[in-house]
Formats: sequence, C-alpha cells, structure tokens
Amino acid sequence: MIKAIAEHRSVRKFDNQPIHPALMGQMLRAATRASTIGGMQLYSIIVTEDTETRALLAPCHFNQPMVVQAGAVVTFCADVRRFSLWCEMRGAKASYHNFGWWVNAAIDTLLASENFALEAENLNLGICYLGTTLYTTEQIIEILELPHGVIPITTIVVGHPAESEIEDRNNLTPRLPLEAVVHYGKYTDYTSSRIDELFHEMESSEQTARLLVENDLPNLARIFTERRYTAEDSAAFSASYRQILARQGFIEL
Amino acid sequence: MIKAIAEHRSVRKFDNQPIHPALMGQMLRAATRASTIGGMQLYSIIVTEDTETRALLAPCHFNQPMVVQAGAVVTFCADVRRFSLWCEMRGAKASYHNFGWWVNAAIDTLLASENFALEAENLNLGICYLGTTLYTTEQIIEILELPHGVIPITTIVVGHPAESEIEDRNNLTPRLPLEAVVHYGKYTDYTSSRIDELFHEMESSEQTARLLVENDLPNLARIFTERRYTAEDSAAFSASYRQILARQGFIEL
Repeated sequence: MIKAIAEHRSVRKFDNQPIHPALMGQMLRAATRASTIGGMQLYSIIVTEDTETRALLAPCHFNQPMVVQAGAVVTFCADVRRFSLWCEMRGAKASYHNFGWWVNAAIDTLLASENFALEAENLNLGICYLGTTLYTTEQIIEILELPHGVIPITTIVVGHPAESEIEDRNNLTPRLPLEAVVHYGKYTDYTSSRIDELFHEMESSEQTARLLVENDLPNLARIFTERRYTAEDSAAFSASYRQILARQGFIEL
Repeated sequence: MIKAIAEHRSVRKFDNQPIHPALMGQMLRAATRASTIGGMQLYSIIVTEDTETRALLAPCHFNQPMVVQAGAVVTFCADVRRFSLWCEMRGAKASYHNFGWWVNAAIDTLLASENFALEAENLNLGICYLGTTLYTTEQIIEILELPHGVIPITTIVVGHPAESEIEDRNNLTPRLPLEAVVHYGKYTDYTSSRIDELFHEMESSEQTARLLVENDLPNLARIFTERRYTAEDSAAFSASYRQILARQGFIEL
C-alpha cells in the first residue's frame, strides 16, 4: 500500500519550524494533480504561514495550539469565482454560482486536499484536518478576505512533527471492520445484531474504557452525542453554514 | 512525489477483466485509512461488480461504455445512518440527519474516495471519477437501494486499463499554472489582466484549437458554458440534488 496512506495519522504537535518552499511547492503541485470536473480546478488554496494571520485564524479553530505552532495553515476553498470571471471576460455566460456547482467545487477541493495531505506525509511532514472550518466559516472568510463565489471547505495544518509524535507514529487510529462500511452489489441495511457486531471492537477497547471513566457516561455513543457533537452545535453550524453559502452566492434562502 | 499522484490520469477504456478480490480489499482498506471526523467514518462504499447491476447503473452515467467494461463501479456515499442507528441503540440521541452533518459526511466520503483512487493506481489499475453521480442521484439511490441517511457523492470506475490507455499513460491532463489556484497569506482577487495571463497557456494550446474547430465556437469558455456545462443543466441538477438531499433526510425544503 502507498506508505503515506498505510501510515497516515493526524499529528497535533509540531516543531515551530518553517516549511521549506520547495516542500510546500511539491505538496501544492500534488494537490493540483487530483481529478477535477472538466479540468476546471474549482478551488483556491490559501497558504497562511505568517504568524500574524495564523494568530487571527487560531480562534476559528478553537485555539488549538497547532494552528500557531505548525509551519502552515492551509485553507482549501471551493472557488467558482476564478472560472466564472474568465467566462464573463470571454463573453460566455457562466452559471456556476449555485448549489450544484458548489457541490462540484467541494468535490474538486477535497480531492486536492487529500493529495496535499498524502504528499505532506510522503515528505515526512505531519498533517491534521480541522473540522472546525465549518463551524467558523464566516470568520475565516473575513480573515482570509474570501470574495463572493469562494467558501472554505476544510483546513489542513501542516508542519514538522514534534518528537513525541514521531515516537508515536505507529499508533494508528482504529477503524471499524472493513465490512462495516463496504457493501457488495447494493446497500445492505444494518440490523441491530449487525450493529452490535460491527461496533463491538471499538466499544470494548481500553481507550473506550478510559473515556467512559473520564466522561462519567455509560457508553461511547453518549460521549459522541452529549460531549463531542451535540444537537445544539449541530443545529447551530448547519444553520450558519447555510447562511454563509447564501452570502457567498451558492444558494438562496 | 508519490508516483500515483504524479502520474494520475483518468482512464476511460478498460479490459473487460475482473478485479482480484485481494486488490479490491487493499483499495478499500486504503480508503478507510483517510482522516474522518471524530473517527465516525460517515460513509458507505458500494462495490458493484455484477454485470446486471452495472448495466442498470450505466444510464445513470450517460451510458459511458466504461461503466460496463471496467471491473467495478464503486459508489461513495455519505452515510449518517449507520452511526445514528448505533447511537439510538445505545440510548444516545443522534442529531446527524441535517445539512451540516451531510457536509461533514461528504468530506469523510471524498477523502476516502481519493485514497481508494490513488491506491488503485498504485496497483496499476486505472480509475475515472464520474461527475454524473450528482445528475442522476435519484436513480442511483433506487438501484443501489440506499435508505434514509445515505446519499451518493461520487462514483469511481476502476479496472484494468485497455492497452491504448497504457500507451497513453504519460499524457497527463494540463493544469492551470500553480499560482492560478494558490494564494499566500490571504486571497488575492483576480484582475482581468491576471485572468488573461493565467488562462493563456490553456487557451493557446493545440487541443483548444482543435476543440474550437469541432465546436464552431470562438473561444474555450463558450465551449464550457454552451456545450459542456450549460445553465439549463446546472439549474436542473442543482434543484434535483436538493430535492434528493431533502428526501434522504439531510435538509428541509
């Protein structure tokens, strides 16, 4: 298996060391080799390395220290603006500021981001995806000065891993058994006993046992729904991301 | 650079040869190694190899011959169903059937699909992403029997490349210059003269010259807007995908 894929793990502690421009260039070129609908490259990649802007971005990512420690914060944005501007300049009527093309652009963006992430790991750098991007999109747009037709989809923090992370590098995050996520032919719906089987290993791990004590809750599912990803947060960021999609010109509310 | 990234190209002609289960297993394991929000793996991967179901799927992908020629059609779906069922079985109130979690699930899904694609190429197989997935989502849902909480995001056709594609393997698809899609620090908006510069190479290529003659149009942008991706198609699939998102339980209309 491609080594970067087999050994991928999120790195959250970094040496405060800049990334050599040649390495950054190689990761960015890797990003642009990904498949893209019609060759349109409907994304922009914002590479933020200066301390000042990273400090502004830090609260958007809940002040996780890696945002200012790692060499770069790289924000991957769906972008129909550049392509549309080109069309209009050529007298071609562009119709890409809408929901469907936002989905197309998001697909382009994420395939590019994953190439970037894997190439970073190929170069012995560490990465972490920041899901917080969807919670604080409005602030990120202001800080990075993203115009109409451009919206952040995800962020990758990239840099030289701290020593402790290098020692930890064989410690991969567990996954459900392969048969939990793969269906042959058509979708086979999950029965209760199947769910029990598929989640058994995760629920009975030592890590889970520790989490139950720490959280004082009777099972892992309730840690997800009551601590990590609550209904209130979910409703709030669903609503705010749709507002921002409308403001950036992708949907009408 | 990771060889599969550097040499990636879409393959559209295949030998009608099955994919060895060990290879399929390796690609699927690669998919599941991708980053996933909270380790929740909010996707399902439908591997369709049987001739009958692939024939049913072919019209969903505009009857491109590769859908029935390649070894497998692999449909990558955002799936909050499995995780939510598990939560409910444990007395945890799941709140993942909404727009924000559809975006989270789509991110998980696409990072997994790109790992799958790269691992396929690492194994000397060829792949092609099918953007048609968003145009015919309703039919795909019916054929693959996708329940509430599950929706296709993209499809990859994978198989043994035909001889002609192997000969063509160094023929990479051109990309805009790197500076067209990368911004340092913050977003730098595009001026008209910058757009002219960035698109110059693409517009002045021999391939573009051929396309202008074939399409009887004065510039490349109009081929995009009048032939490939029209306003009518765009409005239609934007509307239909939102309808289906609603039907599968991710948004309210």
